[in-house]
Amino acid sequence: MPSPSESSFIGIELSGSKLSGATVDSNGQIEKRAETSVNGGGLVAQIAAMVADLKAGDENIGGVGIAIPGLVNRQSDRVIASSFLPSTVSNNLHADLTEATGLRVELENDANAAAYGEYVVGAGRGSRDMFYITIGQGIGGAIVLDGKLWTGSSGFAGEVGHITIDTEGAECLCGNRGCLETVASAPNIVRRANERLNRDSTSSLSRLALNKDFTADDMAREATEGDDFALMMLERTGKYIGTGVASVINLLNIERIVLGGGVMQAREIILNPVIQEAKRRAFQPCFEATEIMAASLGPDAATIGAALLARDAS
Amino acid sequence: MPSPSESSFIGIELSGSKLSGATVDSNGQIEKRAETSVNGGGLVAQIAAMVADLKAGDENIGGVGIAIPGLVNRQSDRVIASSFLPSTVSNNLHADLTEATGLRVELENDANAAAYGEYVVGAGRGSRDMFYITIGQGIGGAIVLDGKLWTGSSGFAGEVGHITIDTEGAECLCGNRGCLETVASAPNIVRRANERLNRDSTSSLSRLALNKDFTADDMAREATEGDDFALMMLERTGKYIGTGVASVINLLNIERIVLGGGVMQAREIILNPVIQEAKRRAFQPCFEATEIMAASLGPDAATIGAALLARDAS
Repeated sequence: MPSPSESSFIGIELSGSKLSGATVDSNGQIEKRAETSVNGGGLVAQIAAMVADLKAGDENIGGVGIAIPGLVNRQSDRVIASSFLPSTVSNNLHADLTEATGLRVELENDANAAAYGEYVVGAGRGSRDMFYITIGQGIGGAIVLDGKLWTGSSGFAGEVGHITIDTEGAECLCGNRGCLETVASAPNIVRRANERLNRDSTSSLSRLALNKDFTADDMAREATEGDDFALMMLERTGKYIGTGVASVINLLNIERIVLGGGVMQAREIILNPVIQEAKRRAFQPCFEATEIMAASLGPDAATIGAALLARDAS
Repeated sequence: MPSPSESSFIGIELSGSKLSGATVDSNGQIEKRAETSVNGGGLVAQIAAMVADLKAGDENIGGVGIAIPGLVNRQSDRVIASSFLPSTVSNNLHADLTEATGLRVELENDANAAAYGEYVVGAGRGSRDMFYITIGQGIGGAIVLDGKLWTGSSGFAGEVGHITIDTEGAECLCGNRGCLETVASAPNIVRRANERLNRDSTSSLSRLALNKDFTADDMAREATEGDDFALMMLERTGKYIGTGVASVINLLNIERIVLGGGVMQAREIILNPVIQEAKRRAFQPCFEATEIMAASLGPDAATIGAALLARDAS
């Protein structure tokens, strides 16, 4: 059996509609990619086929890591809850994948996997402790302490999207009110922008007013191109995120905070107000002990992280 | 030199106006107590005198732990900031105390020391990971992970009183707006009660309306004796604290949360709404993985914890 440093590892990310996979060398570099749509049929068979495809011609695959949108308990290798997976699939996912792939399998929550990727080979590199925040369809997070994912007593730590920033705020899908996610996730940025466009005639100068079905990605692009309304909306979003970041800083006095996910395509347009608001709200000595930066692995973070979790599993 | 299990340790808590000390055996039981007012003169000399007093007749004192209201960096043994200590005292506190007492000295933030005491011999006993919240003049907190205080990259982790629960809330002493502390610390509970008494004539039936200078302790006592207004105000306070607790649960998925400090003298009157609100706001699987309970060491927590930190310092 080859040593881990000679082996490669497969990482696969399951999102709502697709599987993205890659072979990753022991230094976290992608060697080969694969992508397919989830066809609604046998998910286990689709993952096994992708593993076989990625493995073809490479005898030194040391294991496979799968990043899943849902709550995963790694002690028990159980998927506890996932809105994307029917329980008939999730209940036996680890055992079924181990059998179907013939490899050691690690399951992990997608935000945790992405955090681990950023920590080892991305924007978290060189820090001891890191908090990762991913801002996309939802807002997720994960904690790395002293080189290891710190996932809490049952594997769910890091849910920064559901800390309350406004006691009487809007209802969240999670049942709470005023979660960070209710104002700063991609769909909620779009909702806030549409509400503003509907009630404020000056914002009709925005190019976004010409497009009935704009997305958060469209807003990021328009903001980058100088659209004042899109800029203002994203700056406000950054302030909300900064409020959550300040709470993370005060609670954890953490060395580094890395922000990833699709919304971070707007880069400095979001990052600068995040940093400003965190500075305004956090304890000064805690703020000064924290570096806040944008993620560097882009959409590969979870795939790379899942492969590295397979590398580092004991 | 006797082994730690035969030694006793001295714990001393410095609060604004007094020094409370105790000799604590290696099992965390108090053997002997001392208390004195801080006289504004030499703090180091006063602490050394208390240590000498507690040490008298006991040859087996293994070290002394000092709990301080302020930010302490234990890696460097430095007091970084304390509103109670002039910098002329705090800058050399560790070296001066080591010299003056002739013992190994551990300095720690008071909430961290109290958390450690509760973790080892109080309400945290038996848990692996614990979050401690102390509600008194301010709201502090501390994190114990896997048996050790987790104090963050520079020693300041756990500042749950300064997480934002209301983006546009009242200004806090820390410079932020809408911190948990702005509604739920002892002085702010009294402030909210006075505001309500001034504007709402029905509340004038409360016995608190007869006392111009009531304290949070008075409110806790009246609530315990059935005063409807005091009960309502403390229940609301519990809800605010529960909002912060829910954020801690979602961020850390922590096994146990222990609530201490003077305001918890009202026990279930506060604790029950804390638990209800945390249940309402936190992710269900995270909430179900958490035990929320009242501290059990009362005002001795920081003294005992400081002594145990001296016991366990390597």
